Amino acid sequence: MTLERVLDAESVAVIGASKTVTKRGYQAIRTLVDENYEGRIYPVNPKEKIILGFRCYPSINDIEGPVDIALVATPARTVPAVLEQCGQKGVAGAVILAGGFGELGEEGRKLENEVIAVARRHNVRLIGPNTSGMMNLKKNLNLVGLKNAPRGDIALLTQSGNMALTLITEAKLKSRKGFTYYVGVGNEADIRFHEYLEFFRRDPDTRAILMYVEGMRDGRKFLQQAYRTTQEKPVVLLKSGRSSTGKRSAGSHTGALAGMSEVARGAFERAGIVVIENSDELFPAAETLSSLPPMRKNRVAILADGGGHATIAADLLTDLGMQIPVLAEKTQQRLRQVLPDAASVPNPVDVAGGTDDNPAVFADCAKIILNDPNVDGLLIVGLFGGYGIRFAESLSFMEEDAAHRMGKLVAKRRKPIVLHSLFASEKPHSLDLLRYYGIPVYDSLDVACKCIGVLAQYGRYLSSYHAKTNFVLNWGQKASEEGRRIIAAALAEGRSALLEHEAKRLLRLHDVPVFQDRLAATADEAVQIAEEIGGEVVLKIVSPDILHKSDAGGVVLHISGAKKVRRAFERILKNARKYNPAADIRGVIVSPMADVGVEVIIGTKLDDQFGPVIMFGMGGVLVEILKDVAFRVLPISPTTARQMIDEIRSAPLLNGYRGQAPCDKKALRRLLLKCSELIEAYPQIVEMDLNPVIAHEKGVSIVDARILLRPEPADGHGQPGDRK
Amino acid sequence: MTLERVLDAESVAVIGASKTVTKRGYQAIRTLVDENYEGRIYPVNPKEKIILGFRCYPSINDIEGPVDIALVATPARTVPAVLEQCGQKGVAGAVILAGGFGELGEEGRKLENEVIAVARRHNVRLIGPNTSGMMNLKKNLNLVGLKNAPRGDIALLTQSGNMALTLITEAKLKSRKGFTYYVGVGNEADIRFHEYLEFFRRDPDTRAILMYVEGMRDGRKFLQQAYRTTQEKPVVLLKSGRSSTGKRSAGSHTGALAGMSEVARGAFERAGIVVIENSDELFPAAETLSSLPPMRKNRVAILADGGGHATIAADLLTDLGMQIPVLAEKTQQRLRQVLPDAASVPNPVDVAGGTDDNPAVFADCAKIILNDPNVDGLLIVGLFGGYGIRFAESLSFMEEDAAHRMGKLVAKRRKPIVLHSLFASEKPHSLDLLRYYGIPVYDSLDVACKCIGVLAQYGRYLSSYHAKTNFVLNWGQKASEEGRRIIAAALAEGRSALLEHEAKRLLRLHDVPVFQDRLAATADEAVQIAEEIGGEVVLKIVSPDILHKSDAGGVVLHISGAKKVRRAFERILKNARKYNPAADIRGVIVSPMADVGVEVIIGTKLDDQFGPVIMFGMGGVLVEILKDVAFRVLPISPTTARQMIDEIRSAPLLNGYRGQAPCDKKALRRLLLKCSELIEAYPQIVEMDLNPVIAHEKGVSIVDARILLRPEPADGHGQPGDRK
Repeated sequence: MTLERVLDAESVAVIGASKTVTKRGYQAIRTLVDENYEGRIYPVNPKEKIILGFRCYPSINDIEGPVDIALVATPARTVPAVLEQCGQKGVAGAVILAGGFGELGEEGRKLENEVIAVARRHNVRLIGPNTSGMMNLKKNLNLVGLKNAPRGDIALLTQSGNMALTLITEAKLKSRKGFTYYVGVGNEADIRFHEYLEFFRRDPDTRAILMYVEGMRDGRKFLQQAYRTTQEKPVVLLKSGRSSTGKRSAGSHTGALAGMSEVARGAFERAGIVVIENSDELFPAAETLSSLPPMRKNRVAILADGGGHATIAADLLTDLGMQIPVLAEKTQQRLRQVLPDAASVPNPVDVAGGTDDNPAVFADCAKIILNDPNVDGLLIVGLFGGYGIRFAESLSFMEEDAAHRMGKLVAKRRKPIVLHSLFASEKPHSLDLLRYYGIPVYDSLDVACKCIGVLAQYGRYLSSYHAKTNFVLNWGQKASEEGRRIIAAALAEGRSALLEHEAKRLLRLHDVPVFQDRLAATADEAVQIAEEIGGEVVLKIVSPDILHKSDAGGVVLHISGAKKVRRAFERILKNARKYNPAADIRGVIVSPMADVGVEVIIGTKLDDQFGPVIMFGMGGVLVEILKDVAFRVLPISPTTARQMIDEIRSAPLLNGYRGQAPCDKKALRRLLLKCSELIEAYPQIVEMDLNPVIAHEKGVSIVDARILLRPEPADGHGQPGDRK
Repeated sequence: MTLERVLDAESVAVIGASKTVTKRGYQAIRTLVDENYEGRIYPVNPKEKIILGFRCYPSINDIEGPVDIALVATPARTVPAVLEQCGQKGVAGAVILAGGFGELGEEGRKLENEVIAVARRHNVRLIGPNTSGMMNLKKNLNLVGLKNAPRGDIALLTQSGNMALTLITEAKLKSRKGFTYYVGVGNEADIRFHEYLEFFRRDPDTRAILMYVEGMRDGRKFLQQAYRTTQEKPVVLLKSGRSSTGKRSAGSHTGALAGMSEVARGAFERAGIVVIENSDELFPAAETLSSLPPMRKNRVAILADGGGHATIAADLLTDLGMQIPVLAEKTQQRLRQVLPDAASVPNPVDVAGGTDDNPAVFADCAKIILNDPNVDGLLIVGLFGGYGIRFAESLSFMEEDAAHRMGKLVAKRRKPIVLHSLFASEKPHSLDLLRYYGIPVYDSLDVACKCIGVLAQYGRYLSSYHAKTNFVLNWGQKASEEGRRIIAAALAEGRSALLEHEAKRLLRLHDVPVFQDRLAATADEAVQIAEEIGGEVVLKIVSPDILHKSDAGGVVLHISGAKKVRRAFERILKNARKYNPAADIRGVIVSPMADVGVEVIIGTKLDDQFGPVIMFGMGGVLVEILKDVAFRVLPISPTTARQMIDEIRSAPLLNGYRGQAPCDKKALRRLLLKCSELIEAYPQIVEMDLNPVIAHEKGVSIVDARILLRPEPADGHGQPGDRK
C-alpha cells in the first residue's frame, strides 16, 4: 500500500530547495537535518549546486536512488509540471504546500483538478495542497518547519496549521504526551481523511487519533472507516464551521465543502467518534483517551479538599450525563476511618482538612473509593500537587508518594483517575509523576470533568457496539423491477418528482403500509373505488403541474355516498382547471380516511457531506416551530430506528400521553427501516417526504408521500464526494 | 454605617491567638505582620503574655483602645461567649472562622441562631461563620492566611475558600489584575450578599465585583441591590449547585439554602449581572469587564493570522449571539493596502502571512478595523506575542510596538480589543504590555470569545436599562377590601385554597377579564343564569372537598337550553355526592363557553430564594412535555411581560401560525401585569394557576383559576429569607 511509502518515507526530495534562510525551501532542509531525519535528503533546484552540505539536483529525475516523497515548495502554477517530473521519477507521494487551489474558487479549482489528473496518471499520492505539511515523529521526518514537537502515541490530523501548532504546543507545555504523526490534510485533493484514518488504525504506535476538521470531501467513507477504527482506538474530533460565518471562514480556508452540516455531530458519534465542541477540551480529551482505560459505566466519584470545587464538579458532571452515586455503606465506613469527623463521605467525598498534614491520604481514599463496585472512575479536585508549594516542602514528598500509589492503582484496578489541580501550572513534581502513570492533570475544572466524561462516553460506545451498524449503501440491491420502471418512466417524462399515486405504489412495492388509494379518471370510477373502500374517503387531484394540492382546492376530505363522491370529483377538477388551466390532469386519487392517531413525519434528503440522511419528527407545530426532529445517516439499523423515535423531545406523546393509547412504535421502526431500504434501492431518489404519517395504536397510515428524483448519477452511486 | 468599620477596620483582635506555628491563631497574626497591616493588632489568649512580639490580652475587654474587628479563631461552641465579650467591648464586627453551624443541620442551626442573637443584641456584625475570612487589600488587612494576593480593582465575594484561592491564584499567574477586598461569605448568618454588594458599589476603588455563590439567604434583596449596583459597575457571578448532587454538596458546605433554583439565572441577568456557567471564564470575565469599555452593540471583527482559529472563533461568537458583520468596503480597501493579496478581508480578517515579517501590522489592521462604524469590538486570535519566540527576536520589538499602539487605540476609540494568543503561557513582554493597557490576553479561544461576549452583554444591558424594573414588593398596597375579605373568609374556614368562583371574583376585582360565571345553589338558579348569559354554557361543581372537578364528574361543557341545563345541574350534584358523600357542596358554577383560540397557562409560585415568581407558557403538550415556559421574579414591568411572551420557543403560535389570526398579545401582557399586581396585593397567596387561558384574536378568556393560600406571615411579608 502506497500510503506507507508516503508517510513512512525513507527518502525526501525538496523541490524548490533554497539557500535563502527565510525561504521555506531552506527551512525544510534545515529542519530535516536539525531533527535528525533517518532517511536520505535530496535538495532539488536547477540554480544551486550545494545546499547545507547536500548536493543539489537540477531536477528530481537526476537523483540516482529512489525517492519516496517529494516536498513541493514551489508556487501553485508550477505544481502540475513538478508533479509530472515526480511521476516520471516514480515517487510515492508529494506534499504540496502552496495555497492558491480549490480554496480560491473556480480558477483555483481548475488548477487543482489538473494537479489531481497528473497525480492519478502517475499514481503519485498527494498530501494537500494548501497544507502546512506532515511529520512522522518515529522517523524524525519533519516536513512542517515546527521543531521539537514531542514524540508520543497520538496521531494528529488537522485542516489548520494553526490548530496543529496549538495542539502540539499544548502537548509540550501541559502534558507528557506527544505524537506519532501529524498530517496537515489541506484541501484533501487526493488522500482523504478516511485513508489517513485507516493508516493510523493500522499503525501499532498510535493509541489515539486527534482531528480538527473544517469540511470533508467524503463524509460517508470517513464514517465507515471511523466505525472500524473506533473499535480499536479512540478518535477525538472537533469540527468547526457550524455558523454561517464559520462556514465562510472555513470555505475560504480549506477549499473543502463549506462547514459541517447539522447531522454531522450525530453521525460522527454513531461511528464511535468523541466529538468535542470546546477547543480547550480537544487535546485533553485525546490525552485522556490515549492514556486511561474507558469507564465501564458512567458512575463517578468526586474526591475533594474543599466544597466549592466539589459542588462545581458535581454540576458539570451531571450536565455531562454522569452519575454521582452515593458510595456503598462499607466504602463510607472505610473512608471515615481515614478521614476526620467533619469529612463528608457519601460522594462527593470532602476530606475536610484530612489531607492537610498528609496529602498521601488522597491515595488511601482513592484506593477505598475505586474498590467500590459502583464506582467506575474517580475525579480528584482541588489542591493536590500544591500542598508542598503552599504549606511545607515535606508535604510534597507525601504527594509524590500518593502519585506513585495512585498511578499503580489505576493500572491494577483498570479504573481511571483524572485530577484537577489548582497548582498544575506551577508544575510540581508530583503532578508530573501522575502524568508519567497516565493520570492526566488539568488546572481547569471544566476540562477535568469533560475528560472523565469522554472516558464514560467511549466506554459506553464500546459496550453498545453493534456489528450491524454500517455506513455503506448497497445501491440498487433491493430494487424491484416495477419500482425501477416507475422511476424510469417519470424521469423519461422529464419530471423531477413522482406523482402521489406513483410514490405510494413504489412504497407499497417495498411493503410500506400505504393506503390502497387508486387513481380515478372519471367520476364513475371514483364512485366505484369509493364503494369498494367503504366508509369515508378522501379525494385528491393528481397532476404533475400541481404540487400544492390543497392550495389549488384539489383535496376534499370526509366524503361518503356516491352522490357526494361524484360532486367532490367534479369540484376538484373544476378547481384544478381554474387554478392552472394548462395543468396536465391525470385524474383524482381516492383513498380511505385515516383513523385518529399521533401525527409524525419522516423525510429523507441528500446531505452535502454524507449523502442520504433520514429524519424523524412529530408532526405539526412540533416539527415546524420547535424543530423537534432526529437525523441519521442512512442506512439505519433497528437499534438506530428505535433511538431516533425515542430521542425526540416530544417522544412521550407516542407513549400514551394523557390516557391515550400508546402508539405502535414497532410499526414506526419498521417504517423507518423500509424507508432506509427504499433509498438504498433507488439512487435516483433525492428526497422523500412522508407527511403526515399517522401512528395508531396498531399500525401506521401514510397519508401523503412525496418523492423527488434526479437522473441516475453516471457511476450509479450517490456518494456526495463523487458528485463534486 | 457599621460595614465600613468592619471591612475597613483599623484595629484587629485575634481571639484564640496562639504561639503554635501550625495554628490558625498564630498564622493570623503572622500574616497581618508579614503583609504590613496598617492598623493595630491585639492577640487575645488568657494563657499567653506575648505572641510575635505583641502583648497578648487575657480577654478582649482588657484591650485599652477601641477594637474594630475581632477574628474569632476558637471552636464553634465557644463562639456565643466570645461574642458576648466582643459586644461588651463594642467591636463593630467579628469574623467567625469555625464551621459546625447551620451547615451541619438542626443542632448547628440552633448554635448559629444563638450566635446571631448575641450579635444582634450588641450590634456586632458577623462575617461567617464557616468562612475562610476576609481581606482588605487597600489596608493590608489580611484575615485569610493566603499571602501575597495581588492588589487591584476587583472585589471578590465567595462562598468557597477554594474558589477564592483559585481566583486569586489565577489573577496572580495569568493577569495583571488584583483585588480591593475579599470576603468569604460563609453561612451568611448576619451580613448577607446584598449588604456586601452595596458596600462594594460605594467603594471608589472597586471597578467590578466577582462572585461565587452556592446558595443565598435573601435572593430578592440581593436582586434589588444588584440592580442598583450594575448601573455603576459590572457584577460577574457563577452559581453552582444546579444539579441535585451539586445541591447536596452545596448544602453540606455552606449551610445556605441548597443550590439555586431554575429561575435564578434569568433573575440575575434581569438585574444586570453577568452570569457565568463555566468556571474557566469566571475570572477572565471580571478581568475584562473591569478593564475595558462595554460594547455598544454586538458587532465584532475577528483578526487572525491563520484560518483555524478564525473559524473556531466565528462559531463560538455566533453561539454567543454576536454578529460578525462584513466590513465596510472602505475598511476592506484600507486593509488590502496593508496586507498581501492572499489576505481575506471581509471579516474574519486573515492576514495570510502579512504579519510574518512585521507583527506591528496587527496594530495597523486594528486601527483600520476599529475605525469601521459597524464594528463595536475586535477579537485578535492566533500567534501574536509569539512571533519573537518562534521566528526571530527582533520581531518581539515590533510586537511590543504594536501592543503600545493597540493599547492607546482602545483608550482613544473606546472600543475594546480582546486577544487570544497561543503563546500566552510563555509570558512574552508584548502580552504583558497589552495587559498593562487593559487588553486581556488568553490562551483559550473559548475564554477569549466569551470575554468579547460579556462586553456586548453588559453593554446591551446598560443601553436597555429600564428605571422601572424593580425587585421590591409593595405588599398589600393595591389590595381591595373585598379581596381581603374573600381571602380572610377562606382562611377562617381553615381552607388553603379559594373556591373557583372566589378565585375568579378576586381576579375580577383587579380587572382581570374572567367570565361572569356565577354560583347557582339550585337548578332553577342555574337555568336563570344560563339564560342571562345566552349561548352555550359550562356547569362546574363547587366544593372545598372536590379539587379535581373533572375526575368527580363535576364538569359539563357545551350546554344550552333550560332543560339541558337543569339535567346537567342534577347530574353534577349526583356525581359529586357519589364521588365524595361527605363533601361540602356549595353549588354549581355557570359560565359561558370560551371562544376558540390558543391555549396558554399562567402561574405563580413562591421560590425558595426569590419569593414570588411568575410563569408563562403555551398550554397542553408544550408545557407538560416540552417545558416551554418563561419564568420571572415578581413584580414585572410591561417590558418584562413582553419578553416573557416572546421568549418561549413556541411563541410563533401566538403570531398567527398557519394562516390563523394572531392572538391578542397586548391582552396577554395586561393579564401578566394584573397577576403581578394581585400577588403583590395579597401576601397570603402562595400559588396561583390560570389554566387554561384562551388567547383570542381579541382579548383572552380565563377558563379556570386556582389560588392557594397560607396564613399571613407574622411580619406581613413574603420575603423568603424572613421565613427561614
